[in-house]
Amino acid sequence: MDSAVLWQLSYGMYAIGVSDNGRPCGCIVNTVTQVTAENPVIALNVNKQNYTYDVMMRTGAFSVSILTEQARPEAIGALGFASGRDQDKFQNLDYALTADGLPILKEGTCGFITCKVISTMEMETHVVVLARVQDAFKGADGVPMTYRYYHEVVKGRAPKNAPTYQAQSEEVSQPEQGPGKYVCDRCGYTFEGDFSQTLADFTCPLCGASRGHFKKQG
Amino acid sequence: MDSAVLWQLSYGMYAIGVSDNGRPCGCIVNTVTQVTAENPVIALNVNKQNYTYDVMMRTGAFSVSILTEQARPEAIGALGFASGRDQDKFQNLDYALTADGLPILKEGTCGFITCKVISTMEMETHVVVLARVQDAFKGADGVPMTYRYYHEVVKGRAPKNAPTYQAQSEEVSQPEQGPGKYVCDRCGYTFEGDFSQTLADFTCPLCGASRGHFKKQG
Repeated sequence: MDSAVLWQLSYGMYAIGVSDNGRPCGCIVNTVTQVTAENPVIALNVNKQNYTYDVMMRTGAFSVSILTEQARPEAIGALGFASGRDQDKFQNLDYALTADGLPILKEGTCGFITCKVISTMEMETHVVVLARVQDAFKGADGVPMTYRYYHEVVKGRAPKNAPTYQAQSEEVSQPEQGPGKYVCDRCGYTFEGDFSQTLADFTCPLCGASRGHFKKQG
Repeated sequence: MDSAVLWQLSYGMYAIGVSDNGRPCGCIVNTVTQVTAENPVIALNVNKQNYTYDVMMRTGAFSVSILTEQARPEAIGALGFASGRDQDKFQNLDYALTADGLPILKEGTCGFITCKVISTMEMETHVVVLARVQDAFKGADGVPMTYRYYHEVVKGRAPKNAPTYQAQSEEVSQPEQGPGKYVCDRCGYTFEGDFSQTLADFTCPLCGASRGHFKKQG
């Protein structure tokens, strides 16, 4: 089987928002599809270990913010690569709360959908969630970001929990030192300065990757 | 609810192939997603009234051909807008059969996936089908066609069975007459010649739309 063929499937990029006892929480997914045209239902695929999925199952409600090509890589990194179990992923993002307390991402998005979970279909690692659309409303103008655009233009990676994750060899080498730009190869976060001045236990502020994940650019 | 927001979800374009007692049959879908990364499972959304779905449930097997931007609108029309219940949709297409007898579309495609159905989740009009990938192999080079590209560049429409179908007022007027190009507003098929010379019961050879669906171009 040539599993690279599966990379040719087309997806969008979406920020999922849930309310964890009033605390905004969420994640990035690429697999949201419409199932029925009338009284619309959508499906999304999510990893069972994802904290956002836990909250979604507990509360039965979530929002979808449709990302555009204007979405900042840092916003995708903040929502996509860290776990909301331990930290407030929305703290540095421009967001609003719906009447139901669901966070929606106001920056780099062109539309929002709020949903109630109907049912789930579990596979080994992931779950397909079916949800009834409660409301849908427009955001700013913008071209929806495709997953291909994210990979090829934004140069983003798939986090380990993604259905589309492909294992890569873990880098544990020390990055070059000296002043410059150091880019996290896991989420794209850029550190500017002298990397040798960072603490030994420095980790990526977006995704928590160890210092070995940082590569000097240029 | 502003249901136009749902049009901002991103999809690809795929030809589904099934074997109807040895006869190749299939349809076009836009909703194929990967569910699990290891031992991959995919999901697709399909209309219950779709004949391809009948055959898929009876045989438990289907193929996915990933369409590229080079796919001919006529090939999409042939598979997407007619029903395989009554006609051989593959008759004018360049296709091959897998070892299991599943048709795959050789023209305008960059990859193929063969699958066995695991389970289904039924909604009012549509079903989410979960299927285990049996094999995946590359086709010709090409950029996968997105649903957006199909709408904006190919100027294609959604057939009535699509999850993403939006009702449009049915045109019953007679088209202009005289020599020229006449385009079916349902599937994009182009008739060239003097439309007034066609038979009164002329229907679109691709999708079966009545003559009132043809508009003179230019």
